[in-house]
Amino acid sequence: MKTILVTGFEPFLNHEDNPTRKIAAAIDGEVIGEYVVKAAVLPVTFSEAAGKVKEKIEETNPDAVMMLGLAAGRNRITPERVAINCNDGEVDNNGVKKQDEEIIEGGPAAYFSTLPIRTFVDRLTEAGIPAAISNTAGTYVCNNIMYQTLHYLKERDLSIPAGFIHVPASHQMALQKHGLASMSEEEMLRAVRLMIEAM
Amino acid sequence: MKTILVTGFEPFLNHEDNPTRKIAAAIDGEVIGEYVVKAAVLPVTFSEAAGKVKEKIEETNPDAVMMLGLAAGRNRITPERVAINCNDGEVDNNGVKKQDEEIIEGGPAAYFSTLPIRTFVDRLTEAGIPAAISNTAGTYVCNNIMYQTLHYLKERDLSIPAGFIHVPASHQMALQKHGLASMSEEEMLRAVRLMIEAM
Amino acid sequence: MKTILVTGFEPFLNHEDNPTRKIAAAIDGEVIGEYVVKAAVLPVTFSEAAGKVKEKIEETNPDAVMMLGLAAGRNRITPERVAINCNDGEVDNNGVKKQDEEIIEGGPAAYFSTLPIRTFVDRLTEAGIPAAISNTAGTYVCNNIMYQTLHYLKERDLSIPAGFIHVPASHQMALQKHGLASMSEEEMLRAVRLMIEAM
Amino acid sequence: MKTILVTGFEPFLNHEDNPTRKIAAAIDGEVIGEYVVKAAVLPVTFSEAAGKVKEKIEETNPDAVMMLGLAAGRNRITPERVAINCNDGEVDNNGVKKQDEEIIEGGPAAYFSTLPIRTFVDRLTEAGIPAAISNTAGTYVCNNIMYQTLHYLKERDLSIPAGFIHVPASHQMALQKHGLASMSEEEMLRAVRLMIEAM
Repeated sequence: MKTILVTGFEPFLNHEDNPTRKIAAAIDGEVIGEYVVKAAVLPVTFSEAAGKVKEKIEETNPDAVMMLGLAAGRNRITPERVAINCNDGEVDNNGVKKQDEEIIEGGPAAYFSTLPIRTFVDRLTEAGIPAAISNTAGTYVCNNIMYQTLHYLKERDLSIPAGFIHVPASHQMALQKHGLASMSEEEMLRAVRLMIEAM
Repeated sequence: MKTILVTGFEPFLNHEDNPTRKIAAAIDGEVIGEYVVKAAVLPVTFSEAAGKVKEKIEETNPDAVMMLGLAAGRNRITPERVAINCNDGEVDNNGVKKQDEEIIEGGPAAYFSTLPIRTFVDRLTEAGIPAAISNTAGTYVCNNIMYQTLHYLKERDLSIPAGFIHVPASHQMALQKHGLASMSEEEMLRAVRLMIEAM
Repeated sequence: MKTILVTGFEPFLNHEDNPTRKIAAAIDGEVIGEYVVKAAVLPVTFSEAAGKVKEKIEETNPDAVMMLGLAAGRNRITPERVAINCNDGEVDNNGVKKQDEEIIEGGPAAYFSTLPIRTFVDRLTEAGIPAAISNTAGTYVCNNIMYQTLHYLKERDLSIPAGFIHVPASHQMALQKHGLASMSEEEMLRAVRLMIEAM
Repeated sequence: MKTILVTGFEPFLNHEDNPTRKIAAAIDGEVIGEYVVKAAVLPVTFSEAAGKVKEKIEETNPDAVMMLGLAAGRNRITPERVAINCNDGEVDNNGVKKQDEEIIEGGPAAYFSTLPIRTFVDRLTEAGIPAAISNTAGTYVCNNIMYQTLHYLKERDLSIPAGFIHVPASHQMALQKHGLASMSEEEMLRAVRLMIEAM
């Protein structure tokens, strides 16, 4: 049996919750397709999040890494195509704010996801769940851990598939915020299971 | 047992489908809360839609009327607060286009919904389904049948609750159209059942 | 020479400014088309705003009334078609919050604008300024003063044209808030002058 | 006097016009800040656009390259941070459609803009024009020419600043399409001049 490391995030900014934390908790230990899931929940901080992913990789020695994050405002499941070597954006949960800063000094400008993102979108579409490839993971902590994880695997010549998937706000979050598109947590959970099955 | 007339619409404009047609078909004959459902699917035409609602009212002698329509672009269930005495907007399915025209010459400027719309929103919110009262049903065929139905009931002193509820695009519609917010048909169906139960 | 009363609003909610206040200040005393402008800036309160409009009507005895308000999020000039008999929404500048309340007990459900709103949209479009008729002025203080003013004029058999026009956020507001559509204050001012000319 | 090559695009997809074509035409030959402008209008085709930029570079031997493109739906001027090695998206003006294809086989995953994009945003903000750095130039012809131009300059060790800036739909385009955010062509032109001055 192969192992997949799945990560979610804690709440951040003014969001009261983070559906990816619940998804990670819900599938921890599950067997999905060819994989048994090892899950972790990450802090939303530039200084700690990627380190925690690397720790978990060393601890669980996974055959694949699927990182999950919240992109409030999107209305579908969006596997990310690429992570760029840039920290920028709002303050993180440590109150740290970055601007136009390299993640890894002198690192490559970007890494492409090595997850089968087109297959993911096709599989979700077949299952009736709105999905699309995204061409930007932003420049906040999500992009940071995607970039750093892909860089770490590259440096160690570990050719396991790894990448990042953004999910919309949950219905729970949208109940309080008019205008926010959303998806039910059940449906997001179903989407994550379908993607793991499709690997 | 009381009777509720529930109406949906056929597809219109460039939409390939209309989830309200399926919802109407799915709950026709069901017993929900205190009501047995009589469903009808309406043509999207200024000249025929309201007439068909009135026919169905005469035929089924209902204790309540819940009209459903599609508002592509919205991201939640939106019970409408008010219908206004105005036809305007895109061509209907007969190719007819109206502009700034009264629906009923000399009629009141507007009618408020007599469905318990605040209760609907509260009930859906409790159930985790995004919902909000909308203050405009537009000026297309949806608003037209809401206005005409409320006018018809008023004229005949029929004090049964009646009103209109817009639903978002279905996931099925959003699969083909990037950027379109959506809700699954299962969830919309659940929402409609919850609203009828809450009456 | 005829007189037009033009009103703007003070800032409200978390908006730092309100472009309609500046527009009102800018055109106060100007002669535009057949009108000399008398301008006023209103408090964003359910209890005072409409009273101040009525005072100004009594004081200036105008031949037309054009009320302006901010609709942050819209991307064009939107003359309102209709005001409805309902107070609802966020807290006003007095901290008062209304829900599903009639503005005038037993008043008509709605009043249509008596400004030439279609002419306004056509004139702005010719001039290259994005504009569209809006079918909802909301249920906040903007709708409140539109409804109350039209009711007041009706009650007194004053058949002068009156109505409400929403404008987008200003560029100044959008500079601080990513994602917010906006229009420059110069362009909004030009739009208001064009509408008065078109009356 | 230094030379800056500024490129715009022809109309594409279902857009009737392309404001970047007009901007390029308007500033061709102008002296702005330290630069004289040499402008070119490009075809929206995967096979020809980048070749035409390279030709123009060879022909004009510029000290800087600023490529402009339309991003309908955005509401501000968005200097692009990065171009990625990927062709994907809608059909181009030759009817060619790409999916998940490398632009340059084995090329780097991405190139960062070498224009002073933070300075551009600061300068535009000071001037009251909404602007923000964008983290995705998409995967269509815009991204394609940005990637290829930066790759070309890198391969030849030409260290001149080069990059891409997306502009919103013009008011002219928005007049016909309700819901589309827009900026006037005059304002976009002013923005482009301000950016060149700021280099």
